[in-house]
Amino acid sequence: MSHTYRVTEIVGSSTESVDDAIRSGISRASKTLRNLDWFEVGAVRGHIENGRIAHYQVGLKVGFRLEETDSGTGDLPG
Amino acid sequence: MSHTYRVTEIVGSSTESVDDAIRSGISRASKTLRNLDWFEVGAVRGHIENGRIAHYQVGLKVGFRLEETDSGTGDLPG
Amino acid sequence: MSHTYRVTEIVGSSTESVDDAIRSGISRASKTLRNLDWFEVGAVRGHIENGRIAHYQVGLKVGFRLEETDSGTGDLPG
Amino acid sequence: MSHTYRVTEIVGSSTESVDDAIRSGISRASKTLRNLDWFEVGAVRGHIENGRIAHYQVGLKVGFRLEETDSGTGDLPG
Amino acid sequence: MSHTYRVTEIVGSSTESVDDAIRSGISRASKTLRNLDWFEVGAVRGHIENGRIAHYQVGLKVGFRLEETDSGTGDLPG
Amino acid sequence: MSHTYRVTEIVGSSTESVDDAIRSGISRASKTLRNLDWFEVGAVRGHIENGRIAHYQVGLKVGFRLEETDSGTGDLPG
Amino acid sequence: MSHTYRVTEIVGSSTESVDDAIRSGISRASKTLRNLDWFEVGAVRGHIENGRIAHYQVGLKVGFRLEETDSGTGDLPG
Amino acid sequence: MSHTYRVTEIVGSSTESVDDAIRSGISRASKTLRNLDWFEVGAVRGHIENGRIAHYQVGLKVGFRLEETDSGTGDLPG
Amino acid sequence: MSHTYRVTEIVGSSTESVDDAIRSGISRASKTLRNLDWFEVGAVRGHIENGRIAHYQVGLKVGFRLEETDSGTGDLPG
Amino acid sequence: MSHTYRVTEIVGSSTESVDDAIRSGISRASKTLRNLDWFEVGAVRGHIENGRIAHYQVGLKVGFRLEETDSGTGDLPG
Amino acid sequence: MSHTYRVTEIVGSSTESVDDAIRSGISRASKTLRNLDWFEVGAVRGHIENGRIAHYQVGLKVGFRLEETDSGTGDLPG
Amino acid sequence: MSHTYRVTEIVGSSTESVDDAIRSGISRASKTLRNLDWFEVGAVRGHIENGRIAHYQVGLKVGFRLEETDSGTGDLPG
Repeated sequence: MSHTYRVTEIVGSSTESVDDAIRSGISRASKTLRNLDWFEVGAVRGHIENGRIAHYQVGLKVGFRLEETDSGTGDLPG
Repeated sequence: MSHTYRVTEIVGSSTESVDDAIRSGISRASKTLRNLDWFEVGAVRGHIENGRIAHYQVGLKVGFRLEETDSGTGDLPG
Repeated sequence: MSHTYRVTEIVGSSTESVDDAIRSGISRASKTLRNLDWFEVGAVRGHIENGRIAHYQVGLKVGFRLEETDSGTGDLPG
Repeated sequence: MSHTYRVTEIVGSSTESVDDAIRSGISRASKTLRNLDWFEVGAVRGHIENGRIAHYQVGLKVGFRLEETDSGTGDLPG
Repeated sequence: MSHTYRVTEIVGSSTESVDDAIRSGISRASKTLRNLDWFEVGAVRGHIENGRIAHYQVGLKVGFRLEETDSGTGDLPG
Repeated sequence: MSHTYRVTEIVGSSTESVDDAIRSGISRASKTLRNLDWFEVGAVRGHIENGRIAHYQVGLKVGFRLEETDSGTGDLPG
Repeated sequence: MSHTYRVTEIVGSSTESVDDAIRSGISRASKTLRNLDWFEVGAVRGHIENGRIAHYQVGLKVGFRLEETDSGTGDLPG
Repeated sequence: MSHTYRVTEIVGSSTESVDDAIRSGISRASKTLRNLDWFEVGAVRGHIENGRIAHYQVGLKVGFRLEETDSGTGDLPG
Repeated sequence: MSHTYRVTEIVGSSTESVDDAIRSGISRASKTLRNLDWFEVGAVRGHIENGRIAHYQVGLKVGFRLEETDSGTGDLPG
Repeated sequence: MSHTYRVTEIVGSSTESVDDAIRSGISRASKTLRNLDWFEVGAVRGHIENGRIAHYQVGLKVGFRLEETDSGTGDLPG
Repeated sequence: MSHTYRVTEIVGSSTESVDDAIRSGISRASKTLRNLDWFEVGAVRGHIENGRIAHYQVGLKVGFRLEETDSGTGDLPG
Repeated sequence: MSHTYRVTEIVGSSTESVDDAIRSGISRASKTLRNLDWFEVGAVRGHIENGRIAHYQVGLKVGFRLEETDSGTGDLPG
């Protein structure tokens, strides 16, 4: 049997660290997407205020398994 | 507090110019997505008919802030 | 008139071949997305069990035309 | 039936704008190539003289359909 | 002695499979180019009609050895 | 004789268009750098406010010829 | 507990097809490497003789789990 | 009004962690550059001594807003 | 005198963090390879279970100096 | 006035060195193409026989200015 | 203790060879920058006049260690 | 019959030139690997001491044909 996966792209952010931005993004995604399976880190960026890092922003591709009956409920917008 | 952003990929098109294809794509996305925040231009392509450019097609990644309560309404399909 | 397209990213899989994984992914996407127009193959990966390929996984970007009235029904989740 | 396309690479230039350099390149290519079908924009560069942009140079890949009988007439050199 | 090779870019297409699109493109190129030596696969794309793959399009770079006396006959256009 | 060139990276912005953001960045650079010679466009991004493009931001690499006697005056910071 | 994986790069070849070149490379690797876990396809190339594809060559990264006690036996050379 | 930004490339290092190397680099840059606005992480490398990580080195692009009157004071060398 | 270095590719994993996955991979490699000199981080991925990150996987290229007499002992498999 | 340039891709080879392969390729191209203007080096490869480099192969993109009246004479094949 | 490095981008040129263009660029940079530590070669290009290479241009990233007290003297412009 | 090739990554170095670093790396690899077939140049880097190039370091992928009976002798470590 052949599963199909869907890949969605998000940006997690954190005032603390790169790892925390990753966890924050995954945590938010898991609130509205079922069957989250894997992630891959993309661009790591951040903003600086007054010479200090104000927050980290980490691009993430998140993959999850589509169920045969999925049809648009429980979605992230976009 | 840590916002999470969603990145969606679209292709805007125009018979006029690259800039117009960008604006057209953003305009269409804004009809059904809230909190659009930024975009990034990807591939710029187009079709040629009778030796002239028939239309421009511009790949765009569009980012928008997820609200804590977003759960799949007001979405672009896909 | 300027159409806007939406690009969604999926991973098709198959125990048989690369081509079958492509077809499987497109077939699944077509169940819930209207106006599928084109695809582009990304990463081609797979898993190995007992020294043999257990299944192929093919990343696919799938483009489809947005209708003026699309607003979030008939969507793939995510 | 399976068409084959040929992709040729050119650089269009203009003293006016990026869009004008694209149009200029396509226009020149259409003088000697039949069946131009699509283009894709590559590197966008330019030269500066006296602190102002002297001209824009836009790399373009241009695709056109090969006819079954094409054999080297009506070609761009190179 | 130092040979020089020429690299030309084509797009082979097929309604059947990726492999068939590769073979189709090489076959077409061999009708008008001598001394074809190697190929490399680039982008693999395709079009979808009614939820099924209508045709595959495979970008190919094709290399062939230039003879010392080659001067523009037997060419692919462009 | 062998010239050496220096490449500096800037981001030009504009509320109007991509071309205007390019011109704006080059214009600013030319105020404090001598011998500007060429530019290359990198990432094209922008911000969206209320569903409309608020400004375009275009990454630019700008090259200029170093004079034998250059030693740090008339510089862009950084 | 944290596993470490090793990634080795091979090129599988076949006179038949891309898929066959993938299977051929994995099959050869499995003769001397334990615990093969996944693969990823890289460059797809081939040689042409007399206007026909003589053989396909497919670059593959192959990953396998290192056992705690692995120390250099059962290795592919290089 | 159109701001212009300058992007400078640095490598931050740390004996502790990737995050610490990022912070260390930003901190050093903020000593001599005004208006630091954002950063982007590039290559993450490090050196190993006696089988342990001796230090992490993180490539960073750092962007800052140019003031209209900037003319080369308060600069990082190079 | 000219040293030659060898680059081997591994994937370190951890249930804790990206940094811990890097350290774990380097630590494992140092058990069987002499003269480890540097590393470079590649893809950062991970798996998700029940909406939480189950483990991080970090691709690493690890370089080490070849001794003149190295001939295949003390090797990582593959 | 806006010139258009054509970019052709060749592979120069040499038994001696990388530089000699570049010169050899440019020299061959100049025999049949007018108005050669610039080149850019791509992949640098080579073959090994009996543990020694048998020849170097250097991919080159070569640009030349199209004359308004060019129509397919004096061409490299392909 | 954590050093920070600065990376500056230059283009060295030479009428003789690629290696000479590298050396020429490094030599020029060392006249005004202290503590040069490493370089990395980027794009290798050149200009052609009358069918022969008129000069080579080699893009270089040059890294150097920032001293704690560096504040903008002895700089390359830009 | 289908050969399988193995690709190993090394870094050759030289105090003299880029070409010499390539030859040095290939020469070292040929001492312990049989059937070396081809190489491809990757990153070209180097170190600078007292404003002069102290040594060049050239990344190389080296391919060689696996014999049916290869099982881990005559290997480069790693």
